[in-house]
Amino acid sequence: MIIDIHGHYTTAPKALEDWRNRQIAGIKDTSAMPKVSELKISDDELRESIETNQLKKMKERGSDLTIFSPRASFMAHHVGDYNVSSTWAAICNELCHRVAQLFPDNFIGAAMLPQSPGVDPRSCVAEIDKCVKEYGFVGINLNPDPSGGHWTSPPLYDRHWYPVYEKMVEYGIPAMIHVSTSCNACFHTTGAHYINADTTAVMQLIQGDLFTDFPELKFVIPHGGGAAPYHWGRYRGLAQELKKPLLKDHLLNNIYFDTCVYHQPGIDLLTKVIPVDNILFASEMIGAVKGIDPETGFNFDDTKRYIEATLNLSADDRHKVYEGNARRVYPRLDAALKAKGK
Amino acid sequence: MIIDIHGHYTTAPKALEDWRNRQIAGIKDTSAMPKVSELKISDDELRESIETNQLKKMKERGSDLTIFSPRASFMAHHVGDYNVSSTWAAICNELCHRVAQLFPDNFIGAAMLPQSPGVDPRSCVAEIDKCVKEYGFVGINLNPDPSGGHWTSPPLYDRHWYPVYEKMVEYGIPAMIHVSTSCNACFHTTGAHYINADTTAVMQLIQGDLFTDFPELKFVIPHGGGAAPYHWGRYRGLAQELKKPLLKDHLLNNIYFDTCVYHQPGIDLLTKVIPVDNILFASEMIGAVKGIDPETGFNFDDTKRYIEATLNLSADDRHKVYEGNARRVYPRLDAALKAKGK
Repeated sequence: MIIDIHGHYTTAPKALEDWRNRQIAGIKDTSAMPKVSELKISDDELRESIETNQLKKMKERGSDLTIFSPRASFMAHHVGDYNVSSTWAAICNELCHRVAQLFPDNFIGAAMLPQSPGVDPRSCVAEIDKCVKEYGFVGINLNPDPSGGHWTSPPLYDRHWYPVYEKMVEYGIPAMIHVSTSCNACFHTTGAHYINADTTAVMQLIQGDLFTDFPELKFVIPHGGGAAPYHWGRYRGLAQELKKPLLKDHLLNNIYFDTCVYHQPGIDLLTKVIPVDNILFASEMIGAVKGIDPETGFNFDDTKRYIEATLNLSADDRHKVYEGNARRVYPRLDAALKAKGK
Repeated sequence: MIIDIHGHYTTAPKALEDWRNRQIAGIKDTSAMPKVSELKISDDELRESIETNQLKKMKERGSDLTIFSPRASFMAHHVGDYNVSSTWAAICNELCHRVAQLFPDNFIGAAMLPQSPGVDPRSCVAEIDKCVKEYGFVGINLNPDPSGGHWTSPPLYDRHWYPVYEKMVEYGIPAMIHVSTSCNACFHTTGAHYINADTTAVMQLIQGDLFTDFPELKFVIPHGGGAAPYHWGRYRGLAQELKKPLLKDHLLNNIYFDTCVYHQPGIDLLTKVIPVDNILFASEMIGAVKGIDPETGFNFDDTKRYIEATLNLSADDRHKVYEGNARRVYPRLDAALKAKGK
């Protein structure tokens, strides 16, 4: 089985975006604020949006199951206040839940959180409870910068975030550290802000001792870990300067990198530098880079091709990257699969 | 000849830091503001600070000439106003000039600029004039974020920066895009802010069309280009989505990456992905990562070892990386060397 641990519902029916635009308009003009019940998307519309997009490509490329969460760039936690984020997160998570119910063999949910700049992350707990207990979601996306490119929240090792971590440990769910849209003109959303956030998260985790407090906590660093694997020597050296343990002990029992790196040399480096037990297959399809690479004739984000072609992985290693590691890092996914005899 | 294009005066005598601390105290209490003349550092002190540090290691490792600029993390453009930055830049640049005069075969200067958040970069022109005409400096360091981690300046493609670019073209000097200390707790200075800034700069240059306006402009992206080479497929794909030319045409006539990547797999990727004509030897020694890599027994920042060991470069390629490219990208360096018969 091939599990893609990083997919977002980027192809939701247009009604969702229309409702969101009305919600944003309603922040200034409360009389214009739409009700949740005014958003109507039928199962047929959901089916079509998936069958003609993600599911079609999954079949073409040969992956079986996607861990599916709301569109990352649309989380936009910087918009409005907690109530705005809370309503929006509930809607987006419910849609992913419905997709997972319609296609139970192909999608399983991960939650966006109702984060809002300056608001205690404890306010995210109820949504996590619901998504895990009622929806059967197996992970969450945690935004380390709900301000959208201004980085006004404390670093990930700060106690600020502990209420979320306590829930993660309680349920046995990992968090993908994933920012949303940048509203800082310096940072292109998918070209700078996403990659910078990944790099920043890794360095924050080197600086802190978070996993001493939470030995069971698990983070997925998306987009191949940002710059971290390419600069792994720098990070090993900085950890040493900071008198931290070796990164294999300080980080690698708790953090994992996905394979959203869109060319062969990048995947070759990732699989050379990072132990295979810490690499999870992912494509973030359909996402930021949708085109066909003129150098290969295949989609940039068809990352399975790079995993297949790299000389650094044995057949057993590939099994870990495609399935084994995902079952270990997402124990609720493993349990859900086993309950179906998979 | 082996030219290291990225060295900072990180080992300046303690009197410099003491003076700076007094200057910072003088921002709040103007009666405490020190005079420039109160900073006294003798030639012997300069000699010792270099001979026992950078020059010693250059001889040990086998490099000949370093392009030498003020300590990056000490630029701290976010401190005080333009006058504070202007005085501080003048002092730091003069010290690098004195080092280059004391060791003319081993050091040649590059300038820090008197940047200050919110101040028109036109205010940097006089310092550039002095450093090029009086000191014989061959390049500048341009900080894309003088706020120190809050990213309040416009992107590099914005006309905001054009007065500096016009001077660079006039003199034929490249700019290394190099941030300074982060005063945002989310960003570790050398582990996140530096690398993020490199990545951000590359993406900004993809978004803009700066080199249409300035076909002769040259930028060096330090620290191996941040995350860009590792994610080169992503950047090629994003450029395609943005309807930009191929990166080889859109960027690679104007931007160059240094080799400050502190492990062999990183240098292997850099030299595999980026054309050899766009790679410049550098170590940023003595800098962020001073320790010995327990996996190799050699210093992390002894980057010449990785260049020697990579299978991706021929002898001719290595000559380009070590010397040929630097002479092309820094024409004033080439002229200075030729004037000495080198």
